[in-house]
Amino acid sequence: MRNEKWGIALSNSFPKRIRIFDTTLRDGEQTPGVSLTPENKLRIAKRLDELGVDVIEAGFASVSEGEMEAIKLIVKEGLKAEICSCSRGVKKDIDAIVESGANSVHLVIPTSDTHLQYKLKKTREEILKITEECVQYAKDHGLIVELSAEDATRTDLNFLKKVFTVGIASKADRICPCDTVGVLTVEKAYQLFSDMRETFPNVAISAHCHNDFGMAVANSIAALRAGASQVHVTINGLGERAGNASLEEVVVALKALYGLEIPIKTELLYRTSRLVAQLTGIDVQPNKAIVGENAFAHAAGIHTHGVLAHPSTYEPISPELVGVTRRIVAGKHAGTHGIKATIEEMGLHPTEEQLKDIFSRVKNLGDKGKKVMDADLLAIAEAVMGLQKSKPIQLEEITVVTGDKVTPTASVRLKLNDKEVTGAATGVGPVDAAINAVRKAILNVEPIHLEQYHVKSITGGTDAMVEVVVRLRKGGRTATAMGVREDIVKASVEAVISGMNVLMADYNKSGDNRAKREHGK
Amino acid sequence: MRNEKWGIALSNSFPKRIRIFDTTLRDGEQTPGVSLTPENKLRIAKRLDELGVDVIEAGFASVSEGEMEAIKLIVKEGLKAEICSCSRGVKKDIDAIVESGANSVHLVIPTSDTHLQYKLKKTREEILKITEECVQYAKDHGLIVELSAEDATRTDLNFLKKVFTVGIASKADRICPCDTVGVLTVEKAYQLFSDMRETFPNVAISAHCHNDFGMAVANSIAALRAGASQVHVTINGLGERAGNASLEEVVVALKALYGLEIPIKTELLYRTSRLVAQLTGIDVQPNKAIVGENAFAHAAGIHTHGVLAHPSTYEPISPELVGVTRRIVAGKHAGTHGIKATIEEMGLHPTEEQLKDIFSRVKNLGDKGKKVMDADLLAIAEAVMGLQKSKPIQLEEITVVTGDKVTPTASVRLKLNDKEVTGAATGVGPVDAAINAVRKAILNVEPIHLEQYHVKSITGGTDAMVEVVVRLRKGGRTATAMGVREDIVKASVEAVISGMNVLMADYNKSGDNRAKREHGK
Repeated sequence: MRNEKWGIALSNSFPKRIRIFDTTLRDGEQTPGVSLTPENKLRIAKRLDELGVDVIEAGFASVSEGEMEAIKLIVKEGLKAEICSCSRGVKKDIDAIVESGANSVHLVIPTSDTHLQYKLKKTREEILKITEECVQYAKDHGLIVELSAEDATRTDLNFLKKVFTVGIASKADRICPCDTVGVLTVEKAYQLFSDMRETFPNVAISAHCHNDFGMAVANSIAALRAGASQVHVTINGLGERAGNASLEEVVVALKALYGLEIPIKTELLYRTSRLVAQLTGIDVQPNKAIVGENAFAHAAGIHTHGVLAHPSTYEPISPELVGVTRRIVAGKHAGTHGIKATIEEMGLHPTEEQLKDIFSRVKNLGDKGKKVMDADLLAIAEAVMGLQKSKPIQLEEITVVTGDKVTPTASVRLKLNDKEVTGAATGVGPVDAAINAVRKAILNVEPIHLEQYHVKSITGGTDAMVEVVVRLRKGGRTATAMGVREDIVKASVEAVISGMNVLMADYNKSGDNRAKREHGK
Repeated sequence: MRNEKWGIALSNSFPKRIRIFDTTLRDGEQTPGVSLTPENKLRIAKRLDELGVDVIEAGFASVSEGEMEAIKLIVKEGLKAEICSCSRGVKKDIDAIVESGANSVHLVIPTSDTHLQYKLKKTREEILKITEECVQYAKDHGLIVELSAEDATRTDLNFLKKVFTVGIASKADRICPCDTVGVLTVEKAYQLFSDMRETFPNVAISAHCHNDFGMAVANSIAALRAGASQVHVTINGLGERAGNASLEEVVVALKALYGLEIPIKTELLYRTSRLVAQLTGIDVQPNKAIVGENAFAHAAGIHTHGVLAHPSTYEPISPELVGVTRRIVAGKHAGTHGIKATIEEMGLHPTEEQLKDIFSRVKNLGDKGKKVMDADLLAIAEAVMGLQKSKPIQLEEITVVTGDKVTPTASVRLKLNDKEVTGAATGVGPVDAAINAVRKAILNVEPIHLEQYHVKSITGGTDAMVEVVVRLRKGGRTATAMGVREDIVKASVEAVISGMNVLMADYNKSGDNRAKREHGK
C-alpha cells in the first residue's frame, strides 16, 4: 500500500474504517487550568465537525449548568458528527445526557482493584451490577452506549472481560479498555487489543491512551493494528496530566506512515490547533509534532541548505498537507532571493558581491540563534553597503511614573532627524504610556502605526528576560523589530523605535513597494 | 522482572546496559531560535553529568568560535561523561574536534538518495570513500568514532549496510542508523535494528529518533529491544523540527514500564528540564509527559477524589521519583473531595451544607471560563462561611518610577494586619521593583517567598490584558493567585498580594498541614 500524496507508506493490518472519537471538549477540558464557556465549546465543536471527526465528546452533562448548556448548544447545531457526553455509572448522569439531547453516552466504569478499593469502595460484584443496570438504562433511553473500563490496563484481565461481557449482553454498542494512567507499551497494547478482538468479535472496540510516558500515539496505533476500530484523541494532545493521544499526530501518522485513508481534512489541522490553544489558554510547545511552531521550521545550516535544494531532504511530509507554511527561520534561510527582495523593499540595491556578504552576516547572526528581524537586516545591509549613518530616531531619555494612585504617565525626549522632539502621554499601564509618548513625539512627522505588539510568555521571576516583538506599518510597508530586556518598558520602547527606524530609512522614496509586490504576486 | 520502587513493570528483552547519549547541546541547540553561550552550555553539561548520562554531545566544533570555546570549556571541567562533538564527512570538522579535546566524534554521513542527489550531489561510491577516509582519519587522531548514517530510514538497506561495513572495517566504534525525519514506526524500528544487530554483531548500535509523528520514544524503545544498546535523546525533547526523543520520557518509561535499571538520577529530571527551558527559551507545554506542569496535576473531580484517597489511582508513578510535587487544581471539574481538602489546608472547616454551596460557586466561576486559584477558593469559602473580614494585607498605595536614565524604583504603603507598613526597593524593571517593594514591606513579619512568576504571552496592543499567575510559599504551604489587568505592574502586585493573603489567613494556626499530609501518606 503506498499513498503517493503522503510519500512514505508501509502496508500493515488495520480495520477498513478507523473512526476518530475526539474528546478535546471532555478529557481535553479536564486539563488543569482549562475551562471553556458554552460559546467557545460550540466554536471548537464546529471546527471539529468541519475537520471530519466521527464523534465529538462534548462534555460531562451532569457536571455543571454550563456543561449542560454547552452540550445543548452543540446538539442544536445539527453537526454531522455523533455528539457524545460522558457519564459515571450513576443514573442521574445518564438522565442529564438524555436531557442534553446528545446521541451517545460514554459510560465510564472503574474496573481496577485500586479504583474499586480506594475510590469507589465497591466490590467487583457491585461493579458488574452497576454496569448492567446503567447500560440497560441508557439503551432504554435511546442512547448509543460506549462502555469504557476505567484503568483497564491495570485491571485483572478476567474481571475486565466479565465487565465487557455483561455490558455487551445489555447491548452496549462499543467497548473501550482505557489506559487511564498511560502505562501501556506497544507490546502490551497489541496483546490487549488482540485479546479483546478475539473475545468480543461482534462489538466495536475503542482505544483511549494517555501520554504519561510519551507513548500514547504509538500505543493507539498498536491498538488499531490489533483490532480496535476507533481511537480517542484530542487536539494538541490536551487532557488530564500529560494528556491524551494527539489527534493530529495519530491521524497524520496513519496517513503518512501507514498509507491509510482517514477522512480527516488534515489541511485544517494547524488552524484547529491554534483555535484550541487560543480558547483553552494552553500553549503548544514549539517542538510539538505536526502543529508546533517549529515542526516545519529549519535552522541548522545543513538542514536549510537541504530544504532549499529539495524540501523532502528534511521534511517527512509537505507542510501544506497540515495547513502550515514552511518557515526558514529568519536569517540563514530566506536564501539570497528572499533576502534580496526584502532589502530592495527598503529601497536598497546591493551588488551581487555585497549581497553575498549580507547573506553570510545574516547567516552568522542566525547561527548564534538570534532571530533576524527586518531591523537587523537593514542594519547589516547598511553596514555592508557603507551606508551607516545616525538613525532617524534616537532615544535621548524616557521616564515613566505609574502606580495605583497615579495615572500611568510617560515623557520622552528623542532626536528625530537630529531635531529634538518631546512627547508625553498617559496609558493604561507603564508600557502603554511609554509607547504612547513615543508615538506622540513622532506622529506629527511620521504616520507610523503599531500593528502588532507581542510579548513572549515570561517564566521564572520578576527579573526574567522579556522578549517583545512588534510589527509597525507606514502606508503599505511593514517592519518587524524586537527588544529583549529584563525591563518590559525598555524592551517595548527599544522594539518600537527600532522598527520605526526601518520604516523611516529614506532609501525608499517611493515608500510603497511591498504592497505592490504583494498585490502583484 | 518487577521493580518495586516504580510499581509497574514488564519483563522484556533489552541489552544489559543501556547507554544514554544526550544531544541537548547539539541537536537540541539546533531547535530554531535557540542559541546557548559557552557558559550556559557548561551549566547544562554539568547538570547532565550529575544526572548520569553516558555521553554528552556538546556541539558542532567546526561551526563557530563559540561552539569551539564551549566544547573546550566542557572538556576542561573533567566530567564523568564522554564528551562528543558532531562532524560532517569533512576532515576540517574532525580537526576542529581534535583541537577541542573532545573524546569522541559523532560523524554524520548522509546515505539516502534524496540527500546524495539534492544536498550533497555525490555518488554512492564517493560516500563510501568519504566514510572510509573520515573514520580512519578520526581513529588516527585518537577519537572514539560513532558513525551515523543520516536519513538511514529512507536509505536503500543494502547501501546502508555497505556504509556501515566500510566504517566498521575502518574501526568505527559505534554505528547509528538515524531516523532523521522521524518516519519510523515501531514495527519498522524493530525490524531495522534487528537486522543491524544480526548484520553487525560486534559493534555497538545507537538509535537516533526524531518526533515528527509523535513516536520517537516508542521507536527508541523498539530499537533498544531489537538490538541497539545506546539511545540519542534530548532534555525536553528539543531538536530540529518536532525534536528528538525526550530523555525524561525514554528513561522513565524504561524504568517504570519495563523495570530496567538505568543509572540516571531521575529525581533531578524536573530541575534539569527547568534549567534547559530557561537557558534555551523554549517553553515546555503543560501537558508534556514527565516534566510538564500538569504531568502530576489533577483537576477533574473523579481524579482528585481518587488521588486524595490513594495517589496511584490516577498516577502511574509517584511525582517524587522525577523531582516534582503533586498539584490539585480547583475548577469546574473539581469534585467536593479536592475542594474540601484544599480548604481544610487553609484551616477552614465548612459544614456539608456550606461545602455544597462553595462547590457550586466554584463551578459557576469555571463555567464562565475562569481559572480558579487558591485565592479565589479562599474568598468563596469565606463568603459562604460568613468569615468575610478585612484581608491581612491591603494595598494602600504603590508608586513606581522607571526609565532609561533612572533606576526602576518603587515605594509601597500597605496595611498589614491593620498596621501601616511601607517599603521601597529598586529592581531591574518596574515590575521587579514593585514586587521587591511589597516583599520588603512584608518580609520582616511574614517569611513568604515568590516561588513562581508567570506572565501569559501578551498579544494585541500595548493595552492588551495581561494575566499574571504566581505561586508563593510559606514553610510547607503554597498558594496560587492571579492578577489580570491591562497594567503588568498592577496585575503583578495584585497577584502577589492576593497569594500572600491566602498564606496569611490565620484560620490555620499550625500553618503547615499540607506538608504533614504529604509526608504522612
